[in-house]
Amino acid sequence: VTEDSPSPAGRFMAAEIAEQPAVLARQFASQRAEIQEVADFLRNGNHRFVLLAARGTSDHAALYAKYLIETKLGLPVGLASPSTLTAYGSTLDFQHVLWVAVSQSGSSPDLIESTQRASAAGATTLAVTNAPNSPLRAASDLHIDIAGGQETSVAATKTYTAQLQALWLLISAWRGADLGPAEAIPEAVQELLHLPQVEQLADRYRSTDRLVTVGRGFSYPTAREAALKLMETTYLSAQAFSGADLMHGPFAMIEEGAPVIVIAPEGIGGSLLRPVVERLLERNADMCIVGNTRLTEPNKSVAAIPQPPGLDESLSPIVQIVPLQQLALKMALTRHLDPDQPRGLRKVTETH
Amino acid sequence: VTEDSPSPAGRFMAAEIAEQPAVLARQFASQRAEIQEVADFLRNGNHRFVLLAARGTSDHAALYAKYLIETKLGLPVGLASPSTLTAYGSTLDFQHVLWVAVSQSGSSPDLIESTQRASAAGATTLAVTNAPNSPLRAASDLHIDIAGGQETSVAATKTYTAQLQALWLLISAWRGADLGPAEAIPEAVQELLHLPQVEQLADRYRSTDRLVTVGRGFSYPTAREAALKLMETTYLSAQAFSGADLMHGPFAMIEEGAPVIVIAPEGIGGSLLRPVVERLLERNADMCIVGNTRLTEPNKSVAAIPQPPGLDESLSPIVQIVPLQQLALKMALTRHLDPDQPRGLRKVTETH
Repeated sequence: VTEDSPSPAGRFMAAEIAEQPAVLARQFASQRAEIQEVADFLRNGNHRFVLLAARGTSDHAALYAKYLIETKLGLPVGLASPSTLTAYGSTLDFQHVLWVAVSQSGSSPDLIESTQRASAAGATTLAVTNAPNSPLRAASDLHIDIAGGQETSVAATKTYTAQLQALWLLISAWRGADLGPAEAIPEAVQELLHLPQVEQLADRYRSTDRLVTVGRGFSYPTAREAALKLMETTYLSAQAFSGADLMHGPFAMIEEGAPVIVIAPEGIGGSLLRPVVERLLERNADMCIVGNTRLTEPNKSVAAIPQPPGLDESLSPIVQIVPLQQLALKMALTRHLDPDQPRGLRKVTETH
Repeated sequence: VTEDSPSPAGRFMAAEIAEQPAVLARQFASQRAEIQEVADFLRNGNHRFVLLAARGTSDHAALYAKYLIETKLGLPVGLASPSTLTAYGSTLDFQHVLWVAVSQSGSSPDLIESTQRASAAGATTLAVTNAPNSPLRAASDLHIDIAGGQETSVAATKTYTAQLQALWLLISAWRGADLGPAEAIPEAVQELLHLPQVEQLADRYRSTDRLVTVGRGFSYPTAREAALKLMETTYLSAQAFSGADLMHGPFAMIEEGAPVIVIAPEGIGGSLLRPVVERLLERNADMCIVGNTRLTEPNKSVAAIPQPPGLDESLSPIVQIVPLQQLALKMALTRHLDPDQPRGLRKVTETH
């Protein structure tokens, strides 16, 4: 399937990427009351610890929620291993635990079973899904519908940003903060939908077989999701690192000229990446900076994808992934692949 | 530096890999009492959650401890993000939290500062280090010395297995279990030190530029650590996945003939990998199975690295990493690289 055939490659992914401003605006309008209700319940509860359970793209939304909860609520957070709870049959003590299962389909057996076990062990359970009638919702005490609408491309895009925004709204409402800043998101996403720099970058990476993405703090989930999107759609080997972890070993494998995408929000996460950017320049990596492009002196050899100014760092993951989704789409098309139907994958993956 | 020069490449890494049976036996003899004391304190405490903080190789030991605590103690566990606690300056509520910092050197600034902040927020803090006089120990309420002895190669080997065994002893003593099964480890490690299969595999991977490792449950930390060791020493792009996560997207990038190392312990983690192995066979991946080599019918195209029989699944990570350390060493030498001194790395990495 090529771009000229009756069923053009990537048409669903392209449409779903472009739909994101509308999805995010609609979610803000229609889901705020439901999210506020869950948040009120949590604010009046006595949860001491949050466990997040998810797989694939949803796992990156869970990682985003982990940073949000740690920095905004100050509660300890863990990413649960569904296999540990289900396969190893542990006896669990989950008093005072809030268990949050994040899933588009709400139908993966290990997630449903681990949620049931968390509930039996004393946790409050919350399902964040794009499937209000799913078995995961039925297994959970609380539910948030991200209202992303039907997603057809196997490569998830709009459901990811819808998950992020729903989690931002939840955690902001939980701590009693103003939800207003989220209203700036749809326009910021719109501005990043059709950047010529992304076309150029897809061309630059035309024959790239391996690529590294780097983030830190709030931009680390974006690095992970971008790497997954690139792997799913272009089949290249894309590895995501936090800036700190990269320095502990993997830095050795960055070759001269190796393509590295650094995702640097304005704010603290961005400034923490400055030493990483300096070492990558010394190594003569082929660098692209997404976000805070002022991290280096203007440099013709460094590609730059800016972000709209003024967005709070905690919101920037919702917009920064968008040009990287576009990059995955364009790179797949350059390689004559159909990102709507990656080889070997189905839309709903069931793991046990 | 080549193998024939006065200072042969990899001589420290080779010696430190070979030293592991002695290190593990010595730790069991000399550190058991200290570990038991910490375990007694924890058993009498009222800790409801465990947070583990670490970077690099130590982070894989922390991941192992996460599975152990979840399956053997039933407590919720999180892997902490040191950057969140330090850089974002969150106000934290860590009552009833046990904070475990795992570090060889005990000197990384972000780990020390985050441990101090966890302590100020109400957590009990435990440092697991190879440096009894380190600032991390000074910052912590409790300490376990893994007694690995000095490690000179930048690529950590004996300190990793010493961390794993110390954490196994701690968690077993905490739940009041028999520590005796650990006595079988040194001999099991010895049996895996000089396998001809590893030499053959290093030859088979001579021109490999990217490679995937897969684990599940207890073998997932081994997949992660093997990938890091390969990246550090051979500079290839090695990606580790849990079997479940691989099916959620990254499977698309496994090419026909792509090298994939599956780490499959006996027991539950191994049996969970059976469907993954089947899909990899369908894809004609170039597979190597470490551990439970009976996961496939005898198949000449599948390389096999067995493990000594009868070891409990929770102990198998301590032995399964050993042939993979050897593989990283041999592959580095094949490529005329010095694994003792990977480019761009120092023994102690300081991140903020």
